[in-house]
Amino acid sequence: MSNEHQGALAERVSEPVIPQEVAKDISLLEQQFIRAEVEQLRQSVLSFRPLFEKRAKIIAHPEVASNFWLRVLSNAPADIDEYISSSDAAILGSALKSLNVERFELDEKGQGEPRSIRFTFEFATGDANPFFENEKLVKEFYWRKQVLTTPSGKKRTWDGLVSEPVRINWKKDMDITKGLLDAACDLFEAEKKGGDRKELPEAKNLVGKLAEVEALEEEEEDEDDEYPSQTPGSSFFNFFGYRGSDVTAEHSATATKEENERFEKILKGENVEDDEADDDEEVDDDFDTFEVFPDGGELAIALAEDLWPNALKYYVQSFEEVPDFDEDDLEEGDESDDENDEDEASRPRKKTKV
Amino acid sequence: MSNEHQGALAERVSEPVIPQEVAKDISLLEQQFIRAEVEQLRQSVLSFRPLFEKRAKIIAHPEVASNFWLRVLSNAPADIDEYISSSDAAILGSALKSLNVERFELDEKGQGEPRSIRFTFEFATGDANPFFENEKLVKEFYWRKQVLTTPSGKKRTWDGLVSEPVRINWKKDMDITKGLLDAACDLFEAEKKGGDRKELPEAKNLVGKLAEVEALEEEEEDEDDEYPSQTPGSSFFNFFGYRGSDVTAEHSATATKEENERFEKILKGENVEDDEADDDEEVDDDFDTFEVFPDGGELAIALAEDLWPNALKYYVQSFEEVPDFDEDDLEEGDESDDENDEDEASRPRKKTKV
Repeated sequence: MSNEHQGALAERVSEPVIPQEVAKDISLLEQQFIRAEVEQLRQSVLSFRPLFEKRAKIIAHPEVASNFWLRVLSNAPADIDEYISSSDAAILGSALKSLNVERFELDEKGQGEPRSIRFTFEFATGDANPFFENEKLVKEFYWRKQVLTTPSGKKRTWDGLVSEPVRINWKKDMDITKGLLDAACDLFEAEKKGGDRKELPEAKNLVGKLAEVEALEEEEEDEDDEYPSQTPGSSFFNFFGYRGSDVTAEHSATATKEENERFEKILKGENVEDDEADDDEEVDDDFDTFEVFPDGGELAIALAEDLWPNALKYYVQSFEEVPDFDEDDLEEGDESDDENDEDEASRPRKKTKV
Repeated sequence: MSNEHQGALAERVSEPVIPQEVAKDISLLEQQFIRAEVEQLRQSVLSFRPLFEKRAKIIAHPEVASNFWLRVLSNAPADIDEYISSSDAAILGSALKSLNVERFELDEKGQGEPRSIRFTFEFATGDANPFFENEKLVKEFYWRKQVLTTPSGKKRTWDGLVSEPVRINWKKDMDITKGLLDAACDLFEAEKKGGDRKELPEAKNLVGKLAEVEALEEEEEDEDDEYPSQTPGSSFFNFFGYRGSDVTAEHSATATKEENERFEKILKGENVEDDEADDDEEVDDDFDTFEVFPDGGELAIALAEDLWPNALKYYVQSFEEVPDFDEDDLEEGDESDDENDEDEASRPRKKTKV
């Protein structure tokens, strides 16, 4: 599921003492695990769809709809919660109307890529949303595969989620991303018109904005010790600027086809050319330099695999929260409360923010 | 999956403004989600079994077997890693030979409870294990359901993992649990012989040991700021003492049957008696007082749903770790390293300990 560099594993593992044959078996079995996981996801998406439709009907009830996603987000686990700052929460709290998650490349017969994800955020409009004009923000993530070539001509496979930046029409002085998201969109649009990315003025502008935000983060770092994983200068709304990489659908299809053929050959016991690169060999890829939300792929997966299927659970839990939670209770709680204390303690408590 | 108090949800949700009918729909849909998740787990366990068997053969190769589970454990995610102290790691690092996880109540045809889990830890023996005599530690967790009655006669349903304590035959002065695990086993054995738990001298002894360890924790609390979630006085080996609750198989079967019948009636649109308790109403349950590893159920689920299926991935990742990771690199890293830095930073780094 994660966008790791695959392929160079066999060599890696074999480095210390592991025989080449065993390393190859490990590499092949890893592929088989990934394929089984994708199949499982495919079945899971299909079997849960009717329940999500039922849920959509129930949460459309006005008393529930008014704060369903706020309550869900306020109970999200740490690996989602850490990306939502108090300023983000203020925006989401007052303007978010609904969220929908679709595995849009998977059709009703179960054909297609189940790992591609579409998020549709709906917002209040007019005066009800003092922050931006958009009634809807649609962010699509495509699962793509890519074969990169190292300087020595060896190959490295990358796969993961890629996406196009989505612009937000901020109202005056309301841009919480401090121009970062706009800069990412500007660069993307300039690239589409052609030209080398590195040479574009929009690229220079984006790198400058990134440096500004980084400086701001360092400045604010000491002020917010309570939630150390949250980077104060950045915003959840930069998620809409995530790109991941710029693998086209065509390149991805070719890479996938090649890998499938290679996999089939290995399964049949045929010899395949071993031209995979070591991890030591760098691939010239400047993409990360222009990334405004480096963890976008991981957050998309966490939202789609955890927040979305468990939303009803998080909603119900939001009513079970202790309203005035006292830090001191944790320290001096007696043994009989240990289990509950642990649950409370293992998650950042920001329940008041949305 | 989690052992929460179910059932009282409808009332909870309805408390502020949500109409009773909508609250009932939410409660029913929650049940349907849980049932769908169990079905998915059932299918997943069946379809992954052949891959786990293949993996067992590959990792039996001597060069891999020598440190497979150590490498896996050293790359475990935070929600597992936090329970393994450096002293635990020293024991596991030198004595653990293998680990096996079985959904032992699920047969080959897919019949039975897929949530019950058996862990089999195999250890070195004789001088190769200076810590304890056991060649094998088998810890079985049963998924059980229970109907508790509140003082006012209302009902509350609990379900989750229950288990019997497993004794470890520590070598002289080697008991890392400081007598806690022994005390849990002593109490359990005394209970089996009959008598009220609260009146047994073994209960008093266990509560005393728990207080000792708690005092030790408070003492050591300031010394280890780097991994705040790890409680210094406690040990992973107390996991073998986890009990959860004392629901018998018979009680669980009755409660499950009753709940299924209730669920079927609701699905058919029939009226069912609404005798579920509010969350405010306490059930007299002293069980937590005698629990030596309160998070045992959650850790069992994390080990079975994450560590076990992803073991090969964690093993391969263990070769990709930067050997001498420098904290300073994190602070001053340039943008192009952001993604890797984040990955590193989001997980406790205790790679050297096993």
